[in-house]
Amino acid sequence: MTLPSGYRYASTYAGIRKAAKDDLALIVSDKPASAAAVFTRNVVKAAPVMLGAAHLAASKGKLRAILINAGNANCATRTGAEVAVKTCAALAGHLGISARQVLPSSTGVIGVELDADLIVRALPGLCRKLSPNRFHDVAEAIMTTDLVPKTSFAEVGLQAGAVRIAGMTKGSGMIHPNMATMLAYIVTDAAMPPASVSAVLNKAVEASFNRISVDGDTSTNDTLVLMANGASGVRVRDREMPLMTEAVTKVAGHLAEQIARDGEGASKLITISVTGARTDSDAARIARAIANSPLVKTAVAGSDPNWGRILCAAGYSGAKFDPRKVDIALQGVTVCASGLAAEYDEPALKSLLAAKDCSIEFRIQGRGAGRCRFWTCDLTEGYIRINGSYRT
Amino acid sequence: MTLPSGYRYASTYAGIRKAAKDDLALIVSDKPASAAAVFTRNVVKAAPVMLGAAHLAASKGKLRAILINAGNANCATRTGAEVAVKTCAALAGHLGISARQVLPSSTGVIGVELDADLIVRALPGLCRKLSPNRFHDVAEAIMTTDLVPKTSFAEVGLQAGAVRIAGMTKGSGMIHPNMATMLAYIVTDAAMPPASVSAVLNKAVEASFNRISVDGDTSTNDTLVLMANGASGVRVRDREMPLMTEAVTKVAGHLAEQIARDGEGASKLITISVTGARTDSDAARIARAIANSPLVKTAVAGSDPNWGRILCAAGYSGAKFDPRKVDIALQGVTVCASGLAAEYDEPALKSLLAAKDCSIEFRIQGRGAGRCRFWTCDLTEGYIRINGSYRT
Repeated sequence: MTLPSGYRYASTYAGIRKAAKDDLALIVSDKPASAAAVFTRNVVKAAPVMLGAAHLAASKGKLRAILINAGNANCATRTGAEVAVKTCAALAGHLGISARQVLPSSTGVIGVELDADLIVRALPGLCRKLSPNRFHDVAEAIMTTDLVPKTSFAEVGLQAGAVRIAGMTKGSGMIHPNMATMLAYIVTDAAMPPASVSAVLNKAVEASFNRISVDGDTSTNDTLVLMANGASGVRVRDREMPLMTEAVTKVAGHLAEQIARDGEGASKLITISVTGARTDSDAARIARAIANSPLVKTAVAGSDPNWGRILCAAGYSGAKFDPRKVDIALQGVTVCASGLAAEYDEPALKSLLAAKDCSIEFRIQGRGAGRCRFWTCDLTEGYIRINGSYRT
Repeated sequence: MTLPSGYRYASTYAGIRKAAKDDLALIVSDKPASAAAVFTRNVVKAAPVMLGAAHLAASKGKLRAILINAGNANCATRTGAEVAVKTCAALAGHLGISARQVLPSSTGVIGVELDADLIVRALPGLCRKLSPNRFHDVAEAIMTTDLVPKTSFAEVGLQAGAVRIAGMTKGSGMIHPNMATMLAYIVTDAAMPPASVSAVLNKAVEASFNRISVDGDTSTNDTLVLMANGASGVRVRDREMPLMTEAVTKVAGHLAEQIARDGEGASKLITISVTGARTDSDAARIARAIANSPLVKTAVAGSDPNWGRILCAAGYSGAKFDPRKVDIALQGVTVCASGLAAEYDEPALKSLLAAKDCSIEFRIQGRGAGRCRFWTCDLTEGYIRINGSYRT
């Protein structure tokens, strides 16, 4: 897959984290890119989040660079704002751009002063390393508890030619996914005004990153950025916006899925699909409750078709439904019909559930149009020793 | 501690669970006791919950017996209602009481038919075993994933004499405590009308069992019952109601604490205290978010004073507060003052955090009167391998 044109990438070890693994990374667009970002809704916001939002507002949605460090969240410290300002200014000086076209991003420990000098000293070397081929280095450098780097790519054929999309993210599934900082950067060489970039990002986030988390359950640093630099020379026409949105959503969805799959100790990706709810928001409530239920997650880890736990989680989700109208299928096999146990071949289903990818379908009979697709991971280790075998 | 007068207890193995461990239990009051119950708020309610509520209504708050089985929740099955009715009727026949003075309770797997005959056949033997001294047997028989039985006792000196209170519960901490069925039975020999019993129970629950759970996060079978049979001959006067409420609350709080402490793999009980919030409900939101944060729970397990995770959890709780006005103390040692790192002796604090009981105080400066005390357990095992050492 070809990367989008007009971007360069670099990473280096600045000494922010103890382990000698790259902890400073840079994404640069050769020309100002239309950009939009979605930030954490936590009332405690890290300094880079506040400065990044201010920069995007001041630059009217134009960015040249994203400067990211891992190992320190630059949050709840005396000098946080100062550090963010100073490092953005230093980078802007090196690149000969305006500081307000730099978006800073940090992930790591909260409440420990971040030494700006570590970053400032590393910048010349970092800028020298900038290359169109170091996309993957950045995806590695931003990892914290992640077990694997997470990237996704797409190409879209528009009337005036092809545009490319490339995304990377960090964050790992856990029980409430967003409690570990989630950073995601998606770049494209399509030409779009900032307002369109913002519209595309908001739709893409709703069907991807917002589908692996509990509403509001966000860390102090969560940041998702979409940049469109137009380097392909291909402008996205109004009637092509749905196509472009779909492609960005697919990339974002694939990144989000990888976060769910990368949960600590997780062995399986669980895809939850809820249909027939009164509203989409009721469907999302049910899906989230199932996704966050440790009892459901341990049952999946143990390949145990314990649908009672799924029904129970849906029951306390806050969504209204008649339990006697619920069908539940695991890996496509109906295990609960109209709220009661269905007939199925248990050993056969147990082998199906041993797969790396498990699906839970929760269908409410009737004409409700509310639906939601949600991703989570299973829960293994000590916890399962007690709960995974509870039913048998 | 003397048990309340006028109650008898029994347990037996009826063959409901595979392991040959008592799974059927009975609490009988020699005369009709004033009673009140709090049931699950899950939209999926087990048959015994529905029948128990109906019996309490029909008997106008008078109970003679509680019939409890473990190993099967009698929920989401074809014959659930029938089984509950049949077993209550059979017990009533044996005891020569009205069926509507029996409250049924079940805990165990959902969606598997419960064979009423197993219970009916075991009832004669069970009734023969009834004894004032088998309180502890019942506390053992109702256990499912619990590691230890949980009981609590109190005696209150009222003007007309002493009354006794005895409580037992089952349920284990986990991540969302109430997702495993919680059953609790508290009996007293005080004389009180049903309305007073109900008032005492509601207050006691609010400050105990509702402080170890996420709102609405209840299983299909959760049941808490308070019975007052008056066998002491001591009537609780109106002005003694606060004293009686306090005593029952203490028993309920002690039971709830034990549930938190008994979390799977838990090594520590964490007591969270929030003060200075705008309202009690905001304080409870903050406390719950901290209590349910796997990152906070693993930090405590690792004796890591990682207050940033506490601040972050409070930040996404939904409560409004100014992060610059927050002080956080662990084991009484201030680690965060006005939202920033405080000076403290880290090795000394780490040894304090190695204790079995850990405290987290979250204080918002200012005049907010909202406060909450909340209990949870730490999170150990596989999960901690990645998160517990993340900060260092």
